[in-house]
Amino acid sequence: MKSFLSLILLSFSMLVSAQESISIGNKYSIYSEVLGENRPYWVCLPAMYNNPDYGKASYPVIYLLDGDTNFTTMVAIQDRFTKGMYCNMPECIIVGIPNTDRTRDMTPSKSELIRDGKPLFSNSGGAENFTNFLTKELRNRIDSTFRTSGYNLLVGHSFGALFAINTLLHHSEAFHAYVALDPSLWWDNRKVYSEAEKIWKTKQFQKRNLFVAMAKNEDRPDDTQKHSATIHQFCTEVLPSSPRNGLTTAWKYYEAEDHGTVILPGVYDAMRTVFEGIELPVKQIPKNPGLIKEHYRKLSERLGFHFIPSETMVDNIGKYALSIENKKGAKAIFEYNLKNYPESKNALKSLSLTEGY
Amino acid sequence: MKSFLSLILLSFSMLVSAQESISIGNKYSIYSEVLGENRPYWVCLPAMYNNPDYGKASYPVIYLLDGDTNFTTMVAIQDRFTKGMYCNMPECIIVGIPNTDRTRDMTPSKSELIRDGKPLFSNSGGAENFTNFLTKELRNRIDSTFRTSGYNLLVGHSFGALFAINTLLHHSEAFHAYVALDPSLWWDNRKVYSEAEKIWKTKQFQKRNLFVAMAKNEDRPDDTQKHSATIHQFCTEVLPSSPRNGLTTAWKYYEAEDHGTVILPGVYDAMRTVFEGIELPVKQIPKNPGLIKEHYRKLSERLGFHFIPSETMVDNIGKYALSIENKKGAKAIFEYNLKNYPESKNALKSLSLTEGY
Repeated sequence: MKSFLSLILLSFSMLVSAQESISIGNKYSIYSEVLGENRPYWVCLPAMYNNPDYGKASYPVIYLLDGDTNFTTMVAIQDRFTKGMYCNMPECIIVGIPNTDRTRDMTPSKSELIRDGKPLFSNSGGAENFTNFLTKELRNRIDSTFRTSGYNLLVGHSFGALFAINTLLHHSEAFHAYVALDPSLWWDNRKVYSEAEKIWKTKQFQKRNLFVAMAKNEDRPDDTQKHSATIHQFCTEVLPSSPRNGLTTAWKYYEAEDHGTVILPGVYDAMRTVFEGIELPVKQIPKNPGLIKEHYRKLSERLGFHFIPSETMVDNIGKYALSIENKKGAKAIFEYNLKNYPESKNALKSLSLTEGY
Repeated sequence: MKSFLSLILLSFSMLVSAQESISIGNKYSIYSEVLGENRPYWVCLPAMYNNPDYGKASYPVIYLLDGDTNFTTMVAIQDRFTKGMYCNMPECIIVGIPNTDRTRDMTPSKSELIRDGKPLFSNSGGAENFTNFLTKELRNRIDSTFRTSGYNLLVGHSFGALFAINTLLHHSEAFHAYVALDPSLWWDNRKVYSEAEKIWKTKQFQKRNLFVAMAKNEDRPDDTQKHSATIHQFCTEVLPSSPRNGLTTAWKYYEAEDHGTVILPGVYDAMRTVFEGIELPVKQIPKNPGLIKEHYRKLSERLGFHFIPSETMVDNIGKYALSIENKKGAKAIFEYNLKNYPESKNALKSLSLTEGY
């Protein structure tokens, strides 16, 4: 009985601290047959995901490499870009994948590089296995656990960015958008770089997007790998400058950022670039509610995937219309929201605000 | 007995979810005598704050207005800027203050503005009270609960940015650095704007910093408040363009950002600007370990406050020196760290790696 009581007390004290914690997601894990090991993954769900008053929306998924280190950054950017009435990206499910053996998983070939008589990357070359883990095992788990829309993004930095470009080349069907932050394209005598040169000339892509961020790193004269010079040459000479064979690319050079700090502004710009056109001309919408649908039609066409606007955002725009006394506009906006989310109590309640009009 | 068991089961199920949660801080609250109400506040501590192997450092505090909405953004930026060897700001304690009555607390005067026959901001003018809450009640709580260094920053957006500038004018001793993101300087016929014009010409400041971010918002011709035009005029005509009377100011215009999105890049640039010079020439340090101290001496002199480098960062630089086989440099770096954090087991352990040199 005494142990019962102390157990309850312990549980309660932890309950209290749990209630007071500020959480941005949850940690899970999955056993990977392909990799022969347990893999943790971190998940952040959109704000209204579990709100019973809202419609049961489906969401794009962002697969984030170096998932622990970059998790807060990705969460903060999505948070920023999906607030209020002006959204610069859709609400997404963020799946961060922490590393167990980063070099093994991210690199597409075994490097023979030697330093001081020892192989520098003895365990490299496991990208194909990791792609299988990511696009089969983990994808199945995510798609069967959460309400995913089927639109997937891959975000990687450094070796992770090398992995992202390699995946785009050899498994382009796996993700719709690829974000490569300061990619290690020097890898194995520019293996991925050279493949891109060939593959991008001929391969047909199904409306894929690639964003490359380049930091300011000064390559030392004695450094034969020339990390930065390689990225620069890749961006200016290999990346198609306009959409080609279904592949749209963009790149940006960050004068003020180094290899480490480029992640935050790189992801920020990547989301804006991939989802260009998603931001609505909010002030015009009360007078012309059809603009929302029209904007999303164009976005969907450009990205080759059917997107519908977030319930929260449209609700906010409807309430803005009410605030400027445009009941007619508000009614049309709320009706459109209810059409997208027919089971939403929230959308129905908002529509009732325009009753009698 | 049955209810006992179900209580335990419930507690356990919540324990499991609590263990798996990804937390970026904790929520607390304090009763404010000045405001006559309970106020929540959110706190994020530096990564190693509670690690018993590390020295017991003291930290600057960032007081963040609209504290719930902006918390993840501030946490992500601090996380990004204090990783590894290249730090762009010191590790800080982040204190987010959610609103209870935003207009009341953030505005320095009672506005007589009328719209459609009704006063628009009937409850305005409570900034003086809120300043007292912030700089006395909450400051006492934070300083007595956490290891604070005494260096304080205030970060505000919109009405919060108006509040920040007002506090700098009338209580400049309260914070060392002020970040004003797209400030509502139109408030009450430019009250704060006009005061700044006068006060900044004569008042002596004790090495204070102000960073102003201006978003791209187009003022409508019929909008008499002219939010953006007012900020622009303030930045170009009122802000001293070089340090004057102990006040250093900087401002930046964000062509790509609106009133909402300017927060993230604004805070990002603000931290870099306030703490300019904190980033170390890492590659030169193994050969010249005294550079760390020299850099921090200059930073401390410029900011009028004694800063010492983070234990983690210096430890990382020492390990970098080891990785390039500079044991002499590593030893000096680890010794310097142990001098700053004499009770640190971690610093002692790192120093032992250079034994025999």
